[in-house]
Amino acid sequence: MATQSNSQQKPDTNGAKLEDLTADNLTQHVINISSNINNERVKFIFSKLIQHAHDFIRETDIQRDEWEASWQFLTEVGKASHPDRQEMILLSDVLGISALVDIINSRQTPGSTESSVLGPFHNEAHLFENGDSISSNGAGETMLIRGTVRDLRGNPVKAALLDIWETNGNGKYDMQDPEKDGPDCRGKFYSGEDGSFYINGVRPVDYPVPYDGPVGVLLDLLNRQAYRPAHIHFVIAHPSYEPLTTALYDRESPRLVLDPVFGAKTSLTEDIVWSEDLEMAKKHNTKPFVRKVDGQDRTGFWLLEHDFILADRQAVKQRKTHD
Amino acid sequence: MATQSNSQQKPDTNGAKLEDLTADNLTQHVINISSNINNERVKFIFSKLIQHAHDFIRETDIQRDEWEASWQFLTEVGKASHPDRQEMILLSDVLGISALVDIINSRQTPGSTESSVLGPFHNEAHLFENGDSISSNGAGETMLIRGTVRDLRGNPVKAALLDIWETNGNGKYDMQDPEKDGPDCRGKFYSGEDGSFYINGVRPVDYPVPYDGPVGVLLDLLNRQAYRPAHIHFVIAHPSYEPLTTALYDRESPRLVLDPVFGAKTSLTEDIVWSEDLEMAKKHNTKPFVRKVDGQDRTGFWLLEHDFILADRQAVKQRKTHD
Repeated sequence: MATQSNSQQKPDTNGAKLEDLTADNLTQHVINISSNINNERVKFIFSKLIQHAHDFIRETDIQRDEWEASWQFLTEVGKASHPDRQEMILLSDVLGISALVDIINSRQTPGSTESSVLGPFHNEAHLFENGDSISSNGAGETMLIRGTVRDLRGNPVKAALLDIWETNGNGKYDMQDPEKDGPDCRGKFYSGEDGSFYINGVRPVDYPVPYDGPVGVLLDLLNRQAYRPAHIHFVIAHPSYEPLTTALYDRESPRLVLDPVFGAKTSLTEDIVWSEDLEMAKKHNTKPFVRKVDGQDRTGFWLLEHDFILADRQAVKQRKTHD
Repeated sequence: MATQSNSQQKPDTNGAKLEDLTADNLTQHVINISSNINNERVKFIFSKLIQHAHDFIRETDIQRDEWEASWQFLTEVGKASHPDRQEMILLSDVLGISALVDIINSRQTPGSTESSVLGPFHNEAHLFENGDSISSNGAGETMLIRGTVRDLRGNPVKAALLDIWETNGNGKYDMQDPEKDGPDCRGKFYSGEDGSFYINGVRPVDYPVPYDGPVGVLLDLLNRQAYRPAHIHFVIAHPSYEPLTTALYDRESPRLVLDPVFGAKTSLTEDIVWSEDLEMAKKHNTKPFVRKVDGQDRTGFWLLEHDFILADRQAVKQRKTHD
């Protein structure tokens, strides 16, 4: 089927005369020529996109060399993007666009857990049993993650699927590690009958977003540091509840206020505490390790505890209706 | 040398507390974190870019699937870009961004020839003598292009370098034609002592911008036709004058008002006339051809005449100073 763009038929322009385009009338002309469609949503989005793009060019008086540098930069970002390295998402992240889209789309039902950015490192993961470890030997310092999934009325949510991923102790995701050809430090778990979950992983560390590509050049240009505060990602899904994409942040990280992708939120920061409760370790299948504390060898593990509160699908629908 | 983005040193945040980012305060936070630089121009451009990008997201209430489609589209545009196919420039073109940058940057000195968009098909070309043909045999219907380069006072400009390129009679630039592995329908010429030039080429035809890539999908989405009005490109350079990037458009083209890249201007439209002046042909080394006119075989050639007026470099400098 011939589409509009490749139609060789001479267009009927109703005798329209060529109007000289100026800095003042060009924008409306481009919007008009792009508005001959029935899809009101697409029409609206592109009218706003063209208006803002043109306003930006006019207000900054963009010079030819700046325009050229811009499209070359965007081209490089596209070329640097691969399934294992989402440079274009990263660009959206460091400009705060991803965080804004996240905020707009997850207008939170009061009382439920806040969301955070998905980031570019989500990937397929195996299903584990509670108490299994998602990390390979030597991936970092053992951390037990435990808590309960509840609904807004405080009832436990059983069989919620928790999809979890984090860096290893060197600050690398498995896909960034040339020595890993399979998943590491990521896994899926179901909450139990009482809504509880317990997962063994490693203590996450501050790590840089990939800065050896075009977005790294941009961060340097803007004199911005690339390290994200240590965190662990969660996507929590259950048929009866709104899906939740979030993360928990290490309250000790000095980079909470400098998060290059603007994901950290106070309600999502948690203390990661040192525990020497070996009964707890045994109960949760956690492997303690030896660590110097005040110059002494101590045996224990890191502990991160957090409860997640899911919003009913129904509750969200009602709220949206009343917006 | 360690750059800012890869500095592992723990940052001094002056005890700043994590502030929860909302749809209202996120934009200023991203601008602030990107403003710790001395380059005022870069600071200004990025503050405007972040503001407009965020305003666009807020005003359109962009949904996650729309955001995802957007960065996937931009990635595809980047990946489709090659030296012979500048898809990212094409995206800038069809959104009217290139035309706007062109208008802003060539605030025309009154009386000089108007500019037009460079487009993605400029390339290196051989130097020719006046009267040479830039087109290979069979590339299209012969067209003689002639005129004079003058300054604002009407004086001829000698030794101006005219860099010219156009499609062949099938609407293809050489780089789009798989049968061409060298330049065709492009060349460089110097104006003579009296500022005159005469160049043999072919009559250009309406042709589509490349629509078999992601930008073509966009044009279809917006129900826009992809054919540019027939034209021939010129870049004119001389050490004493402002460089001029422009094009001449065939006044007969039905797509002048629908130019997908918004380059056509009334002052740059010209009649392409049929001439049977064989003396003129001989004088300019033009090869006449046989064409049916009112059912009769007639021998002649197409003729495009235009004078270009260059602005002094000095004049432009003075004008800018007084802006």
